[in-house]
Amino acid sequence: MTTLINGEPGESISVYDRGYQYGDGLFETLAVVAGEPLLWDRHMRRLFHGAGRLGIPAPNESLLRDEARHVCRGAARAVLKIIVTRGVSGRGYAPGPETTSTRTVCLLPWPDYPSAYRRQGVAVRFCRTMIARSGTLAGLKHLNRLEQVCARMELEADYAEGLMLDEPGHVIEGTMTNIFIVRAHELLTPDLSHSGVEGVMRGLVLERAVAPLPACRVATLSRDTVLNADEIFVTNSLIGLWPVRRIESKEFPVGPVTRHIQEAIRDACAEA
Amino acid sequence: MTTLINGEPGESISVYDRGYQYGDGLFETLAVVAGEPLLWDRHMRRLFHGAGRLGIPAPNESLLRDEARHVCRGAARAVLKIIVTRGVSGRGYAPGPETTSTRTVCLLPWPDYPSAYRRQGVAVRFCRTMIARSGTLAGLKHLNRLEQVCARMELEADYAEGLMLDEPGHVIEGTMTNIFIVRAHELLTPDLSHSGVEGVMRGLVLERAVAPLPACRVATLSRDTVLNADEIFVTNSLIGLWPVRRIESKEFPVGPVTRHIQEAIRDACAEA
Repeated sequence: MTTLINGEPGESISVYDRGYQYGDGLFETLAVVAGEPLLWDRHMRRLFHGAGRLGIPAPNESLLRDEARHVCRGAARAVLKIIVTRGVSGRGYAPGPETTSTRTVCLLPWPDYPSAYRRQGVAVRFCRTMIARSGTLAGLKHLNRLEQVCARMELEADYAEGLMLDEPGHVIEGTMTNIFIVRAHELLTPDLSHSGVEGVMRGLVLERAVAPLPACRVATLSRDTVLNADEIFVTNSLIGLWPVRRIESKEFPVGPVTRHIQEAIRDACAEA
Repeated sequence: MTTLINGEPGESISVYDRGYQYGDGLFETLAVVAGEPLLWDRHMRRLFHGAGRLGIPAPNESLLRDEARHVCRGAARAVLKIIVTRGVSGRGYAPGPETTSTRTVCLLPWPDYPSAYRRQGVAVRFCRTMIARSGTLAGLKHLNRLEQVCARMELEADYAEGLMLDEPGHVIEGTMTNIFIVRAHELLTPDLSHSGVEGVMRGLVLERAVAPLPACRVATLSRDTVLNADEIFVTNSLIGLWPVRRIESKEFPVGPVTRHIQEAIRDACAEA
């Protein structure tokens, strides 16, 4: 497992890096198969979009690509994590005028999720920790992840994922996944314009949900709407798609739309 | 300027530290005068309260005290910054079972704010960047500070501070300060039960606002209430108290309550 920091091998960063001081940065987590990161272009698009929104100097993409290729070389299956922060500056929220971003590119072990998760589905529950509404941060995969950490810490071992709601009671996403539901022949996923992360795998599902599948529509979903769904599944770049077979005490079938979507994104998943 | 990381001199931390990965930690910023950090006990109370709420293993206070004393030795006037993170763990929001916190204790230069700020007051404006409501994080001085960074980046050079509102339109705090207003012989400061940082200097003002001063009351403050105040001031542990002499185009007098409070907290300020 190799880590490059601004292109140099190493595993330590400055204590004055704004990533450490303020969570002032963004990250991407990619599946790697046979030395190749999957969905590279989509991850880069999100990263550069986020950098633009937060005013973080974007790193050079071909440099990042070379570094990713270097750390991924020879990896049969692994995780590539890229962190881009606003860089090192003095104390205080205002970044200095000459701050240059810090890029961390590292290869990590593939997580050992049971294969039953993607075949038979997972049990999930609603978290008490809510996800805040923030027009500034909504959609971005930024480094301010305390809410996700707190939500994740709530989960007992028999729950593979937790669902997070915002203050008005809308279901937004899982701690590490996006959620989709099928209801009355519609495929729905939460509106993320006020909070949540616009997942790369979510974007792919939105694109590939084409006839004969129902088109996917972004909607405001209450807890009750989710609990009354016909099918439910969660997605991210590492897991691909996990059907949800249970929310707390309520059971759900792993239905045909879920299976079709799972098939439709198979080429973009590390395990299928 | 010295930095200790878990008691050892150094300026780098692991890229796998959860502070860097997720902003999973807390911090304190103390004024140091003649080698002594001011309001130590209050800062420690907030730090340990925050650690308890987030489930971060609290560091040993006497160890922290020794380390602070060590780095502050001989400093005429400086800033002591303490960061406590949940420590190093593998990838994923769930911390490992044996994670131990990382403590960073560092001495930084005293900021060169013009003395006119505390004497004649500062100009501030409302920021477009809003502060999110989060029951999980409200009140804590945690490391998820992207909103403050974005708000601070909005400010033109002639504004010393920016005021942040939440989504429903309540004034919550400055990017780095708490706000107080005087109106109809009442001293008011925003309710921070949904967002904001419970500043140590704010706590001191709440305690020391005693007769003949009006007692300080926590309240919900709209933008209009603030704009119609008789006096306004902002506080934090480094600046002590700055009167607000202007919000955008609206001028405010530096009034008698502001001057009395400034006097009442003088012993706790590095500059008076």
